[in-house]
Amino acid sequence: MTRVLKTAVVGLGSMGYGMALSCLRAGHQVWGVDINPEAVDRLKAEGGEPGNLPRDLDAVVVVVLNAAQAEAVLFGDEGIVPTLSSGAIVLSCVTVAPEFACRMEARCTDHGVHYLDAPISGGAVKASQGKLTIMASGTATAFDAAAPVLDACAETVFTLGATAGPGSAMKAVNQLLAGVHIATMAEALTFGMTQGIAPDQFLNVISKCAGSSWMLENRAPHVVAGDYSPKSQINIWPKDLGIVLEVASSVGFDAPIARAALSQYTAAVEMGLGAEDDAAVTKVYAENAGVTLPNKQD
Amino acid sequence: MTRVLKTAVVGLGSMGYGMALSCLRAGHQVWGVDINPEAVDRLKAEGGEPGNLPRDLDAVVVVVLNAAQAEAVLFGDEGIVPTLSSGAIVLSCVTVAPEFACRMEARCTDHGVHYLDAPISGGAVKASQGKLTIMASGTATAFDAAAPVLDACAETVFTLGATAGPGSAMKAVNQLLAGVHIATMAEALTFGMTQGIAPDQFLNVISKCAGSSWMLENRAPHVVAGDYSPKSQINIWPKDLGIVLEVASSVGFDAPIARAALSQYTAAVEMGLGAEDDAAVTKVYAENAGVTLPNKQD
Repeated sequence: MTRVLKTAVVGLGSMGYGMALSCLRAGHQVWGVDINPEAVDRLKAEGGEPGNLPRDLDAVVVVVLNAAQAEAVLFGDEGIVPTLSSGAIVLSCVTVAPEFACRMEARCTDHGVHYLDAPISGGAVKASQGKLTIMASGTATAFDAAAPVLDACAETVFTLGATAGPGSAMKAVNQLLAGVHIATMAEALTFGMTQGIAPDQFLNVISKCAGSSWMLENRAPHVVAGDYSPKSQINIWPKDLGIVLEVASSVGFDAPIARAALSQYTAAVEMGLGAEDDAAVTKVYAENAGVTLPNKQD
Repeated sequence: MTRVLKTAVVGLGSMGYGMALSCLRAGHQVWGVDINPEAVDRLKAEGGEPGNLPRDLDAVVVVVLNAAQAEAVLFGDEGIVPTLSSGAIVLSCVTVAPEFACRMEARCTDHGVHYLDAPISGGAVKASQGKLTIMASGTATAFDAAAPVLDACAETVFTLGATAGPGSAMKAVNQLLAGVHIATMAEALTFGMTQGIAPDQFLNVISKCAGSSWMLENRAPHVVAGDYSPKSQINIWPKDLGIVLEVASSVGFDAPIARAALSQYTAAVEMGLGAEDDAAVTKVYAENAGVTLPNKQD
């Protein structure tokens, strides 16, 4: 039997909420934190703890949107790290630059708190099933302290290094690929439409061919169904590809394909699609090409 | 028992040779044609027919490099179509523009010869196993006439339309994706190296994550092994992405990600890498980034 941890999950979006559920299912005590009180109440109804965060939390899982939010959660005016006991663990699942992860680790260490650089991959469904892939790096002590949470949330945990940084670096590499693959799905699907290939035929054929990708198989069905209710928002990509290009630029690395993909997401945000599912980047191409995408069957 | 066809396979490169073997294995009589006499002799040694092409060929499978070669094979000075009997079938497996496929079909029809627009996907190994994916379009009569060859060579045959054109259009869509995915693998792998991620670690982790693609899983191992012996040459991509962009341009479709990928292949050719495996596009990024790729262990 695994240790029961007093765990806070900060950020109850589609990923964080799923991870909170997975922690509950594994028998941990879970306090949910979110600016949206409905999400907090929903988690309480499913077994989350009532009331304020206790002073003796064992673990804090941070699943907020970006580095600025993560820094505010950890060290802002009401920052959580100064309230933690020595030996507690912070798992940061946010996509950030490796250098930022190193800084957060150092500041946690100053408070006697362990830090695991633990970006996640797999989507909302796997988050709620406890089957995420986690790209983790940190000290052996941090891994030990985080183990019950990792067991609850992940199918695969990659151990990528003995300090913060390598986990975030691998996540950036993954996001470069994932972001390009979604936009390329959009480019190819609409290109096919100009040649008389319907989106469902595109999906049926290409998913059996060498042109397939994880993202194509996951996102093209949204376009075929005309369903852009957000599983993962367009807004993620200017942020994540921005991190990729910022890290790349800091070492003089040119990433022209990532840059081309970023332009398509930026155009999607400018079209007002930021809060839609990221498969909606297809609408940028459809608009330019004058083709009509499938509509949702209501 | 399937009909035994008298079949010519024109173009005995890695794909054509594999398809010729698959036809032999299925019991057909196969004549190999190639500018390289060694390939022709090798096929004879494996059961190919000796001597010149007979006048009563049932099927001609064209697996040459490009449209110009295909047109020369079919209708050039020693073109094969005028020598065929009425009712024979030409299967064109070459990656060409849809409009070119339509022209070839019309000219074959003038000679009473059926034409199947039949581009292939799957790589040399699947070609030799008779397990290709074929993106085919043509008349019902053309599909009937081609059926024994399709049975011999393909695991999956997609029936994409009743004329030539849609098969080549789907192949162009597939090549857009495949070409971008190889170059993006190269971009992400070398970006990872600048962040301390070794190529084998990249492959192990990313192939389990949402950033994976068919091409990443197939080609990244070549980079990890430092083995650029050509399974599929760099030279394919300026040609195939050139077709994609030419077809796109003809309908006013902008494909910025495909364009960015094409630039990397063009740079690879300019570095003298055209005849290497297409995974060698990674060398363009490595050179620019100043990172050292693995060498082949001899």
